[in-house]
Amino acid sequence: MNLFFKNHGPFEINYILNKINFSKKNIIKKNKIKNISNLFDAKKGDISFFDNMKYVQDLKNTQASFCLIKENHTKYLNSKTIALTTSNPLNDFILISKLFYPEASRDNFKFVKNNKFKNNFIDKTVKIGKNFSVGINTVIKRNVIIGNNVTIGSNCVISNSIIGDSAIINDGTIIGKIGFGFKFIKNKIKFIPHIGHVEVSKNVYIGSNCSIDRGSFSVTSIGSNTMIDNQVHIAHNVKIGSFCIIAGQVGVAGSTQIGDKCMIGGQTGISGHLKIGNNVHIGGNSGVLKNVNDNSKIMGYPADQIKNFLKKS
Amino acid sequence: MNLFFKNHGPFEINYILNKINFSKKNIIKKNKIKNISNLFDAKKGDISFFDNMKYVQDLKNTQASFCLIKENHTKYLNSKTIALTTSNPLNDFILISKLFYPEASRDNFKFVKNNKFKNNFIDKTVKIGKNFSVGINTVIKRNVIIGNNVTIGSNCVISNSIIGDSAIINDGTIIGKIGFGFKFIKNKIKFIPHIGHVEVSKNVYIGSNCSIDRGSFSVTSIGSNTMIDNQVHIAHNVKIGSFCIIAGQVGVAGSTQIGDKCMIGGQTGISGHLKIGNNVHIGGNSGVLKNVNDNSKIMGYPADQIKNFLKKS
Amino acid sequence: MNLFFKNHGPFEINYILNKINFSKKNIIKKNKIKNISNLFDAKKGDISFFDNMKYVQDLKNTQASFCLIKENHTKYLNSKTIALTTSNPLNDFILISKLFYPEASRDNFKFVKNNKFKNNFIDKTVKIGKNFSVGINTVIKRNVIIGNNVTIGSNCVISNSIIGDSAIINDGTIIGKIGFGFKFIKNKIKFIPHIGHVEVSKNVYIGSNCSIDRGSFSVTSIGSNTMIDNQVHIAHNVKIGSFCIIAGQVGVAGSTQIGDKCMIGGQTGISGHLKIGNNVHIGGNSGVLKNVNDNSKIMGYPADQIKNFLKKS
Repeated sequence: MNLFFKNHGPFEINYILNKINFSKKNIIKKNKIKNISNLFDAKKGDISFFDNMKYVQDLKNTQASFCLIKENHTKYLNSKTIALTTSNPLNDFILISKLFYPEASRDNFKFVKNNKFKNNFIDKTVKIGKNFSVGINTVIKRNVIIGNNVTIGSNCVISNSIIGDSAIINDGTIIGKIGFGFKFIKNKIKFIPHIGHVEVSKNVYIGSNCSIDRGSFSVTSIGSNTMIDNQVHIAHNVKIGSFCIIAGQVGVAGSTQIGDKCMIGGQTGISGHLKIGNNVHIGGNSGVLKNVNDNSKIMGYPADQIKNFLKKS
Repeated sequence: MNLFFKNHGPFEINYILNKINFSKKNIIKKNKIKNISNLFDAKKGDISFFDNMKYVQDLKNTQASFCLIKENHTKYLNSKTIALTTSNPLNDFILISKLFYPEASRDNFKFVKNNKFKNNFIDKTVKIGKNFSVGINTVIKRNVIIGNNVTIGSNCVISNSIIGDSAIINDGTIIGKIGFGFKFIKNKIKFIPHIGHVEVSKNVYIGSNCSIDRGSFSVTSIGSNTMIDNQVHIAHNVKIGSFCIIAGQVGVAGSTQIGDKCMIGGQTGISGHLKIGNNVHIGGNSGVLKNVNDNSKIMGYPADQIKNFLKKS
Repeated sequence: MNLFFKNHGPFEINYILNKINFSKKNIIKKNKIKNISNLFDAKKGDISFFDNMKYVQDLKNTQASFCLIKENHTKYLNSKTIALTTSNPLNDFILISKLFYPEASRDNFKFVKNNKFKNNFIDKTVKIGKNFSVGINTVIKRNVIIGNNVTIGSNCVISNSIIGDSAIINDGTIIGKIGFGFKFIKNKIKFIPHIGHVEVSKNVYIGSNCSIDRGSFSVTSIGSNTMIDNQVHIAHNVKIGSFCIIAGQVGVAGSTQIGDKCMIGGQTGISGHLKIGNNVHIGGNSGVLKNVNDNSKIMGYPADQIKNFLKKS
């Protein structure tokens, strides 16, 4: 999952707990922790965290060796995972993540121009496929892999991304920067490391002046053949399926998942941590606050079945 | 209408129908087609299409020689226009448009820098009037005509546009790129050619980070003395009148027409293919889903008379 | 307040009134006017204006020597301030402001590159603190003071701003340009001078593709430790407190004041000239049309107590 950021681990578990001033009662037998991860992607040797009941199924199935968790949630843990109880699992997880990935809480400014591109700023390390078209004045930073037949407009900023074959990205769009994640811990801002990237699949079309942030502990992804209009904002960890059509000025908050063949009308906002099914149609200007089943047609604020929206109005 | 794109026609009608695998039963006597057009602007010799009852009046009055049309709509045709019946007029029209305008489905990356401008990227072919001010780092591509006393800020991208005298365009605004138009035909994306341009009239003011797309089979136009705030999105074929005031983050969907002296509050969204009259006031945050009469004062989602909005809330 | 714009005054009062064709009956004894100001910040010798009852308390307390005011509002004036009665105080104030600050109605294009920065366009006059990180292709124009440990991404445009220590500004964000202010006076557009600047306090985080306009007759300010997500639009004269969290695509209209520790959900719009208290939570997609008391939790359009929003929906 962390394609582009260096893992400074493994670390010994008690070294970690000591570093973040973790509660004494959790001290456990010697053990190395290899990596940090979300519950879903975690492997043996990883540490993860749980603080939102929406992810209880992931908790039950996780392969993580350790999990930061509130006391009252430990009952959902499976037998493979050792609980590290704490009153604030996310805060502690952020501090631990910073040990493993000290470079991922800030965007990187290192840059060496590839002089083959005269009117653009493309870093020498960027891998580029065949038949690449790029507009004047675009910046492509480190940690980018570009497929074949890709088109990127002018004044874009791309970093930490994989761009699939035949993708089209229009002028002024910004992809792969750090997402909006932080906690105030003892009144100090702690930015959440963003060790993920953005995956733009093949044939995706993205309009102008969009923002697509990279994932924190997961990937932000746009499925193949999905079409996105201008000024759309896609937050960290969002996953959008294939053959979706997303109109202008839509916003999708962090970690929400959208299925295949969805149509989303202009200016619609979708809250974070939701699951939107396949083949869902959402009318323009809606505010979606709950999960949405496959094949639903919804509209309104809060979004409801479209027939109810029409009846009310 | 197509100022900037080369028409590769005329083509013989049966050559065209054959190229797009058109249904046999439509084969008709030899005839040249000169151009493609929307119904309203079509001239003798042009081919057009009809698939939305909102445009039935245009169909009745069109000068087009041929019209792609569903069987059950042929009754609205006038005697000058020959019907080419099909189950999907728009899809067939897109395929035909691509024969006439093969370069208009993708933005153009050809660029030769005008070296008079040191800190900008302005193409040599751009026509520029007297007393031009332009910010650092702006890109002005081919197919642009700029009037007198025009001001364009930094980091803009302008293409396929006519900019009127004394217009002001602020930083980061993108004007004239291709609009959001495509069809999935047999599961393949077919982008709609955008042979139109953007017409920014005299004295228009446009804020920062706006997006104004050029027309597909028509022009996108902003009338004189209209004032547009930051982060506004104006889709292809939209026509806005004179002396309008449009606040921040407004979005206007494709082909909608707005009259003169309208005031539109911040974050309002207006659906596509609507007619908004003259002197209409729309409150902030509204979602406009229907045509609006002259002199209306509306607000809400869906937008309604402002007195009804206030009563409900 | 006017840190960056040259005051061409003082001017003799009758000279001013004559210049703007002011009504004869106001001619008064000789007196110099030193400056223009809003009512709140005005000092002895300044001229101000009153045309919105929301500011009646400022009128009662102002130190301004002169005030453009409607006849029926003169009863609220204190004894130190001389009334200049007019049917349109703001229009007259704009014309007078243009005498004092003829350069502030248009953004400035003067620029001399600081050659220490190779891949950016930073004006020679910009003051920069220690440990400055700046992305490729960013434009920093005149009238900017940057603190220590500041990070600014790629493709930003910054002008007329003070950026506090440890602030982070992400790619494509535009700060300090002129705000959206004008009047049609006798059918001619008169742009309002913007003599203020933007104050970004220490530890502020601003996302990508945001727009923050400088103040007209006041300052636009973002308090310390406030976090702002992508594509947020902050209009002229807005004042935001400390430790606020503002999610993506929020818009705040002109002159609104927001207290400390507020949380504002994505896509929320806030009308102009409002006062939002401290510790206010506003749900996503809301439209806020009225002042909001401290510690309120609101949501909806129009925004209401969150329990009422949930009940209605």
